[in-house]
Amino acid sequence: MSRRIKEHSESALKSALARIKEILGPKGWADDPVDMAPYLKEQRGNYQSAAALVVYPNTTLEVSTVVSICAETGIGIVPQGGNTGLTGGSVGTAHGRDIILSTRRLNRIRAIDPVNDTIVVEAGVILQRVQQAAAEVDRLFPLSLGAEGTCQIGGNLSTNAGGTGVLRYGNARDLVLGLEVVLACGQIWDGLRSLRKDNTGYDLKHLFLGAEGTLGIITAAVLKLFPKPRQIDTALLAVPDPAAAIDLLPAARSAGNGALSAFELMPRQGLDFALRYIAGTIDPLPRPYDWYVLLELSSLTDGNNLRSRLEALLHNGFEKGLVLDAVIAGSITQSRQFWRLREGLVEGELYEGGSIRHDVSVPISRIPNFINQAVKAVQAKTLGIRPVAFGHIGDGNVHFNLIRPVDMDCDAFLAKQHELSDIVHDIAAALGGSFSAEHGIGLLKRDELGRRKPLVEIELMRRIKQALDPTGIMNPHKTLPEQIRRVK
Amino acid sequence: MSRRIKEHSESALKSALARIKEILGPKGWADDPVDMAPYLKEQRGNYQSAAALVVYPNTTLEVSTVVSICAETGIGIVPQGGNTGLTGGSVGTAHGRDIILSTRRLNRIRAIDPVNDTIVVEAGVILQRVQQAAAEVDRLFPLSLGAEGTCQIGGNLSTNAGGTGVLRYGNARDLVLGLEVVLACGQIWDGLRSLRKDNTGYDLKHLFLGAEGTLGIITAAVLKLFPKPRQIDTALLAVPDPAAAIDLLPAARSAGNGALSAFELMPRQGLDFALRYIAGTIDPLPRPYDWYVLLELSSLTDGNNLRSRLEALLHNGFEKGLVLDAVIAGSITQSRQFWRLREGLVEGELYEGGSIRHDVSVPISRIPNFINQAVKAVQAKTLGIRPVAFGHIGDGNVHFNLIRPVDMDCDAFLAKQHELSDIVHDIAAALGGSFSAEHGIGLLKRDELGRRKPLVEIELMRRIKQALDPTGIMNPHKTLPEQIRRVK
Repeated sequence: MSRRIKEHSESALKSALARIKEILGPKGWADDPVDMAPYLKEQRGNYQSAAALVVYPNTTLEVSTVVSICAETGIGIVPQGGNTGLTGGSVGTAHGRDIILSTRRLNRIRAIDPVNDTIVVEAGVILQRVQQAAAEVDRLFPLSLGAEGTCQIGGNLSTNAGGTGVLRYGNARDLVLGLEVVLACGQIWDGLRSLRKDNTGYDLKHLFLGAEGTLGIITAAVLKLFPKPRQIDTALLAVPDPAAAIDLLPAARSAGNGALSAFELMPRQGLDFALRYIAGTIDPLPRPYDWYVLLELSSLTDGNNLRSRLEALLHNGFEKGLVLDAVIAGSITQSRQFWRLREGLVEGELYEGGSIRHDVSVPISRIPNFINQAVKAVQAKTLGIRPVAFGHIGDGNVHFNLIRPVDMDCDAFLAKQHELSDIVHDIAAALGGSFSAEHGIGLLKRDELGRRKPLVEIELMRRIKQALDPTGIMNPHKTLPEQIRRVK
Repeated sequence: MSRRIKEHSESALKSALARIKEILGPKGWADDPVDMAPYLKEQRGNYQSAAALVVYPNTTLEVSTVVSICAETGIGIVPQGGNTGLTGGSVGTAHGRDIILSTRRLNRIRAIDPVNDTIVVEAGVILQRVQQAAAEVDRLFPLSLGAEGTCQIGGNLSTNAGGTGVLRYGNARDLVLGLEVVLACGQIWDGLRSLRKDNTGYDLKHLFLGAEGTLGIITAAVLKLFPKPRQIDTALLAVPDPAAAIDLLPAARSAGNGALSAFELMPRQGLDFALRYIAGTIDPLPRPYDWYVLLELSSLTDGNNLRSRLEALLHNGFEKGLVLDAVIAGSITQSRQFWRLREGLVEGELYEGGSIRHDVSVPISRIPNFINQAVKAVQAKTLGIRPVAFGHIGDGNVHFNLIRPVDMDCDAFLAKQHELSDIVHDIAAALGGSFSAEHGIGLLKRDELGRRKPLVEIELMRRIKQALDPTGIMNPHKTLPEQIRRVK
């Protein structure tokens, strides 16, 4: 169901595209299959992506002009950042009559103010460059995730990216003070405020943050900066089970004095994948355990007895039976080795072949319950299935991935995807959880959204979409469900 | 300009009110002038407030029923919490054909989960009761403001309240994980999620937070809790000027190790008011200075050398000429005395009579510039005027209040309100600031909103209002400007 009002004719389409090309100049677009290929590629190969044109405007004004022409003609626009998303949000539409608008040339850092602790960046700035610019003025920009070397900040904001900094600093939306957005009519909303407090009407920025480009195109943002930690201590803990990990969390928060910066759960199965497939990984503990927690405390000051607080935390945990063994990184190299296990767990899975992934969140207190129920339920369904429940449990976020039984063919296993995902998402829902904690909706999960969101909420989303993008040209077919089928 | 579609006839109004009364039962409403009086009172006496009926539903379902009837009949609804707002947001409409819906009987604490660090409260719970319930499970709910003994959490959320905890914990909206809202059609949106991460579609909660009841009625919320500080150190510093205070801020942030919990500016003029009018206030420093900073560091752990870090901060500040003198509170009593000066400054002003208040924010780095320009400009306009610039400068928020010249009559001074406020707001706007940092819009500032907001933003607000409250029954005449006159 497309809500687009004007259906453009072939000739109107051609003439609009010609006008866009003329305005942007030869550096501003591509319509040749070879040049367009990287923008059409979907990293998991799940979707057929096509476009009438790829444009890369150089300024917000150029974005505004392109959108105005598209609004007149009814041409759909797919905004695209680094194209690293995991749910197909930046994929071109299969019919190929829409355009892809890449933000890559909107790549200026417009201002940085270390006293106000803010940086003003355009949407196309690579996340790592934002981090570096902050570091150059002795500040921290805490958003951090696997794709940080290629993803763009505009995409991070449009998808409300998560990552490893959420526990202490919040999600991407929490790091934003102001936005510049090109609206669906082509008008520019300059909401680039650098204010910590501004109670003047509806908070529009939160509407565009996480909307996956379906309400407008974020072209620039004012981001919060933070003091740089001076000291970081990392520990790898063996714990009896997820319940023990959660029992340890309040004490870890207090020991961190508000600066607990990572609390990641890992099962032995995941460690085994890392140790088997990823070069340079080592198990720092003398014998294997069922479950691990990777824990990190940081401090803004030196000489802050961080280490002794960490040691006391581990000691108390050991006394209570919540910690079975633990090792504190003695060097930056060793701390990196611990993190290598955490990252290697994800990469290692790929070598094993045939994995069905989930990005679930539940209230933190229900994590053990979720993992226990979900593990039992999928094992009951598929003999020999290997569940790997890991991730940011300090935020209530579990990446609950299922690896094929060793003796089962990949395709046979992947054919069970829907059935197994329903089981996992049903359990999360019954515990008040979410079927997409940090990866978003895009194309991949919009049917799931149609099945699981309260109808009244879908209706509110539709009304907002209709109010802000009445002709439906912004990122067509994404985020909002096309059809609503309910969970039985 | 009312966007209400159905104009209710007298008989339709009467019959609808009768139905509402019947459904709520005798404990659920008042239409007698004496019983209605407290709900019609506007604390500053600025507005004539009237209503056809005051209702206090006991459950969310009752709220839903009342709103459904009002939606059918086109009766406007003014949601009201503790009625402590400063901009007339909960005032009844002058024509008296609308109803006031008080949330005071929605006063249950539905759940508390210290492991997930969340509490589920209904809108009518008094803020102080939320704080106490958190303390009972050894947690902190950090929202704190002058009216906390009478204001209701629903009102705090609807106005995105600020207060003294913002520097460390953010505004009211930052403390919310989920909401339950009765929409303008009477439907209930159950968005009471207790999740730290949930990227499934548009973030609807941020739309209702801070919307001052113009888009729906918040009936319950899931709030975040935090570990309770174990140690708090308070210091009163004399500083040469606001620029020195701002220069000191980054070091104070680092010394606080992320736990700088207050950084309040006070001018001597304000201290003088407190010392003159408020019983029990004393100046802890041996001689007067032009400017002061009230600073507070807190820690979640004991034995965390908080005191020595504070002393080092003051010592370094003294060496650099940023601190002229300072005293660290030696007891809780002394710490309360410092805070008494800060609160007494506001109360003392009232005794002086004739004050014109502003609630401005600018980027933190521009605070000194704002104060310098604004002080000069108002002094140039009115000889002998006494500006008192104080407040949460760690958030960029200045309460820039103007007290009448000693030899000027109150009324004569208050007649200059528009002229002087224009000057102050113009300077804030030129520095990228806001004319309402934490108090909101309500009735008082909606003309100012119409004059100062970008037109495109007002248009976005209108479209959202139209999408969510198409018949315009939710808190009529509030927040959105009736007429748009632009600043010259």
